[in-house]
Amino acid sequence: MVSSVAVVAGLGNGSGTGAAAARLFAKEGYTVALVSRGSESLNTLANSINASGGNADTFPVKAYDAEEVAAAFTAIEARFPSSEYAITVAIFNAGHGVWKPFLQVTPEDVRESSKVNIEASFAFARAAILAFQKNQPSPATGAKGTLIFTGATASLRGNVLTSAFASGKFALRALSQSLAKEFGKEDIHVAHAIIDGGIATNNERGNRNTPPSGPVENPKPASLLSPESIATSYLYLVNQDRSSWTWELDLRPAHEKW
Amino acid sequence: MVSSVAVVAGLGNGSGTGAAAARLFAKEGYTVALVSRGSESLNTLANSINASGGNADTFPVKAYDAEEVAAAFTAIEARFPSSEYAITVAIFNAGHGVWKPFLQVTPEDVRESSKVNIEASFAFARAAILAFQKNQPSPATGAKGTLIFTGATASLRGNVLTSAFASGKFALRALSQSLAKEFGKEDIHVAHAIIDGGIATNNERGNRNTPPSGPVENPKPASLLSPESIATSYLYLVNQDRSSWTWELDLRPAHEKW
Amino acid sequence: MVSSVAVVAGLGNGSGTGAAAARLFAKEGYTVALVSRGSESLNTLANSINASGGNADTFPVKAYDAEEVAAAFTAIEARFPSSEYAITVAIFNAGHGVWKPFLQVTPEDVRESSKVNIEASFAFARAAILAFQKNQPSPATGAKGTLIFTGATASLRGNVLTSAFASGKFALRALSQSLAKEFGKEDIHVAHAIIDGGIATNNERGNRNTPPSGPVENPKPASLLSPESIATSYLYLVNQDRSSWTWELDLRPAHEKW
Amino acid sequence: MVSSVAVVAGLGNGSGTGAAAARLFAKEGYTVALVSRGSESLNTLANSINASGGNADTFPVKAYDAEEVAAAFTAIEARFPSSEYAITVAIFNAGHGVWKPFLQVTPEDVRESSKVNIEASFAFARAAILAFQKNQPSPATGAKGTLIFTGATASLRGNVLTSAFASGKFALRALSQSLAKEFGKEDIHVAHAIIDGGIATNNERGNRNTPPSGPVENPKPASLLSPESIATSYLYLVNQDRSSWTWELDLRPAHEKW
Repeated sequence: MVSSVAVVAGLGNGSGTGAAAARLFAKEGYTVALVSRGSESLNTLANSINASGGNADTFPVKAYDAEEVAAAFTAIEARFPSSEYAITVAIFNAGHGVWKPFLQVTPEDVRESSKVNIEASFAFARAAILAFQKNQPSPATGAKGTLIFTGATASLRGNVLTSAFASGKFALRALSQSLAKEFGKEDIHVAHAIIDGGIATNNERGNRNTPPSGPVENPKPASLLSPESIATSYLYLVNQDRSSWTWELDLRPAHEKW
Repeated sequence: MVSSVAVVAGLGNGSGTGAAAARLFAKEGYTVALVSRGSESLNTLANSINASGGNADTFPVKAYDAEEVAAAFTAIEARFPSSEYAITVAIFNAGHGVWKPFLQVTPEDVRESSKVNIEASFAFARAAILAFQKNQPSPATGAKGTLIFTGATASLRGNVLTSAFASGKFALRALSQSLAKEFGKEDIHVAHAIIDGGIATNNERGNRNTPPSGPVENPKPASLLSPESIATSYLYLVNQDRSSWTWELDLRPAHEKW
Repeated sequence: MVSSVAVVAGLGNGSGTGAAAARLFAKEGYTVALVSRGSESLNTLANSINASGGNADTFPVKAYDAEEVAAAFTAIEARFPSSEYAITVAIFNAGHGVWKPFLQVTPEDVRESSKVNIEASFAFARAAILAFQKNQPSPATGAKGTLIFTGATASLRGNVLTSAFASGKFALRALSQSLAKEFGKEDIHVAHAIIDGGIATNNERGNRNTPPSGPVENPKPASLLSPESIATSYLYLVNQDRSSWTWELDLRPAHEKW
Repeated sequence: MVSSVAVVAGLGNGSGTGAAAARLFAKEGYTVALVSRGSESLNTLANSINASGGNADTFPVKAYDAEEVAAAFTAIEARFPSSEYAITVAIFNAGHGVWKPFLQVTPEDVRESSKVNIEASFAFARAAILAFQKNQPSPATGAKGTLIFTGATASLRGNVLTSAFASGKFALRALSQSLAKEFGKEDIHVAHAIIDGGIATNNERGNRNTPPSGPVENPKPASLLSPESIATSYLYLVNQDRSSWTWELDLRPAHEKW
C-alpha cells in the first residue's frame, strides 16, 4: 500500500497559505514535500510538522524558475519512490506580488513575474501531471491527482498598480483552465482558487494589528482570510469526487468590500 | 438550544440536487423544510427522510412566484417558531429550463422564466435574509445563515437555444452576487454554484442509460454530476467559516467537455 | 429603392442615448421610428428631427412590456410598409434603474425590472429579427440588420444597491449574447454596449453641474459619457462589415474610476 | 504643426492585421513606423505604403523582447523628432501562437510566449506611454495617444492545446486593462481587441481556399476576419473621443460558431 504525497510549493515565511496547507495535509496523513526558497523557514516548518507526528521533507529551490522547479520535483520523486509513494496532490502557491505604478515597473520586475507565475508554474504542472499519470484513480474520488493553483484578485482584474502582478496571475489562471480542460478526461483534477483579500499571515496579523472582529464567542476573522481556512478549502477540492469537480472558486472574508 | 432549519426550494421529482441536499442536511441534523410544486413527490421525499430518522416537513407551492414563495416561508416560520428553531440554511434550487430556437420562445416562456428565476428568487432571498438577521452568528463559522443558489452553464453564457433560460440564470447570478456583497458584512453568506453538466437524476440515469464509466473499483460517474456530490459541496459552503467564504464555484464532471 | 428604417426604443426625456442615436441615424439618412413612454418628449424629439430635415415618426407605448412593444412594432411596419421601407436597425435602450438596499426592493420593483429588461426586450428582439429576416444583405456590410442593446456597469457586476437593476441587465446581456450566436449565421448582427459611467443627459449636466474638464481647447467631457459619442459608437456597430462584427464593447469616460 | 506618427509592431508576412492597420493609418495621413521581425516583408510593406503616397519607415527587431522593442522605440523617436512629429498611436500586434498538447510544450515555448506577450508588450507600452505623455490632447478627441493591443479568443479562455498561448494572451489582457485604468485619467486611451476567429491573411486565404460566401453582390467574408475590417476598428478606437472610450471589444466573423 503506497503513501500519498502532497507537494506544496511556495511557503513564504511559514505562516501563510502554503504552510497551512502543508500542515493540514500532513495531519490528514499525507507525506508532504515542501518546496520553497529560504531554507530556514522551510526547515522550521518541516520540523514543526515532523514534531507533530507528520511526515515532511524539504526541497529548497534557489529561485522559482523552470529548472529549479523541475529539479525539485526530480528530487521529490527520488526521495519518495513510486514503489512506496504516490504523488497525488500538488499545490502551486508561489507568487511574486509587485504593486507599483506602471512606469516604475522595471524589466526585471516583469521578468521575475513571468518566471514565477508562468515558467515555474508550467514546470511544476508538467512534473505533477506526469506523476499523476502513473497513479491509479483513487477509489474514493476517482482522481489520479489534484493540482491546485493559488490565484488572487489580480487573477480576474488588472488595476492601477498591478500591471506586472495581474499579468502573471492572469497567465496562471489561463494555465490552470487549459489544464483542467485537457486533463479532466484523464481523471486529473486541476483547480484554481482566487484568494480575494488580505491573508492573516504573521506579517498581516502584525501589520494590521487586527483584533478578532465580531462578538467574543466568534473568533473567526471577518476581514482577513485565515490560512487554515484556505487550506481547508484546498482539502475539500482534493476530496471532491470526479462527478463534480470545481475548477475555480473564490475565497474572501465576510466583511471584504468587493 | 435551538435546532437549525434548512429550507430547500425546488425538488423536482425527488432525485436531483434539491432532494440530495435535503437528505444530506437532514442527516447532518438539520430540520429540513421542503418547498416544491408537485405535492406527491414532495411527500415521498419527506416520508423517506423521516423514515431514515430525519426531520422533514413539506410546504408545497402552486407555482414559483413571489407570493407563493413568500407564503411558504411564512408557513415555515409558523411551523418552526424562533423560540425553538433557527433558519440557518436556505437553498434556492428552483429553475425553469427552456431550450428553444429564439423565434419559438413564447411570451409565456419568458414570463415563466422571469417568475421562477427572478421574482421567486427575490422573494425567497428576502425571506431567508430576514430570517437570518434574527440569528446569532454560528460559533463554528461566524455565519448567521447561508443562502445558496443553484446556477448552470447558462448562468455564464448565452447560447443558441438558451435565450430564455440564460436570461433567467444570468439574472439569478446577478442577484446572488449583489446579496453576497450587501450581506457579507452582516455575516450572512450568499453563494452561487454553477452546475456545468448533466445531473444524474433518475430521468438522466434512465434516459442516458449510463453505465458507471471507469474501472469497476471506481464507481464515481465521470460524465454526469452526482446529486449527492453537489449536495456535499453545498454542505461545504455552509461549513466554511467567515474568514474565507466562497461566493461562486463551478461543478462539473471530470470528463465534461467545456 | 427602399429606405432604411431605424427603430429606437427608450428615449427618456429626449436628451440621452436613445435620442442622440435617433438624431444621428436621422442625419445619416435613416427614417427613425421612435418608441417611448411619455408622448410629450417623444413629440418634441420627433419635431426637432423633422425640423432639421430628418424623417421621424412616433410610436408611444404605455409601458415597456411584451404586448405594448409588439404592438408598436406592428404599427411601425404598417406605417413603413416593406414595399418602400426596410427596417435595418433596432436599438433597445429602454431600462429601469432601481438603486435600493435589497430589503427595500419591492415585488413591484422586481416585476417592473423583469418587464422592461426581459419581457419587453424579448418582444422587441423578436419583432426586429422577423423584420430583418425579410431584408437582403446590405451590399456595404453584408448585414440584414443590426440589433443593439444598451447595457450598463450592472450588466457585468451585481453590487450593493443593484440587485434588481443588475438582474435585469444581466438578463438583457444573456439575451443579446444568445441572439448574436443564433442569428449571426443569418447575417443579422446583434451587439451589446456596456455604458460604464454617468451620461451627460440634461439631468446629469444639471445635477452634477459639470464644467468641461481639461484644457479649454478640449471640450470633450472626461467624466461623463456624451450621448452623441455613444450614438457614434452605435453607428459604428451598424457600419461594421460582417467579416468583423463586435458583439460587446464597453464605453466609459476617460477619467472614470473602474 | 506636428505630424502624427502611428507605431505598429507585429507585421507578420505583411498581409494580416498589423499590415492592414499600417496601410489604413498611412492613408489617414499618419506617418507609420513599422516594427517587425523579418526585414524583407517589412521593406516590402514600407515600399508599398510609400509608393501609394504614404509615409512609412522600418524599424526591424531581431526578436520581440524588452530590449529590442525599447531600442526600436528609441530609433523611432530619433527618426521622428518631437519638434516635427508626435507619436499618437501605438499598436501592439506581435504574438506567438503555440497550439500543442501541454506535455509537448517545451520550456522554450513558454519562455518565448512570455517574452513576446509580456516582456515585449511591457516595453512597448512603456515607450508608447512616455511618448504620449509629451503630447497635447487632440482637439478632436481629447486623447494624448491611443495604445491598442491585439488579443484573441485565447485572451478569454484557456483550452486544450492553448496553455502556452492563452497564458501569454491572458497576461497581455491584464496589462491592457491595468494601463487603461491607470492612464485614462491622463487622457491616454488603452484598448484591447479580441480577434475571435481566423483572419483572412494570405496564408489563410490560401490554406482554407475560401470562396466568398453569401450572394455575389456581397463579397464580405462571413467566416474569416478581414484584416482591413480589423484595421477599421482600430481606427475607430483611435477616433473615439474621451467621453466614451472603449477598453475592450470583440471582433468575429458573422458565421463564426462561438
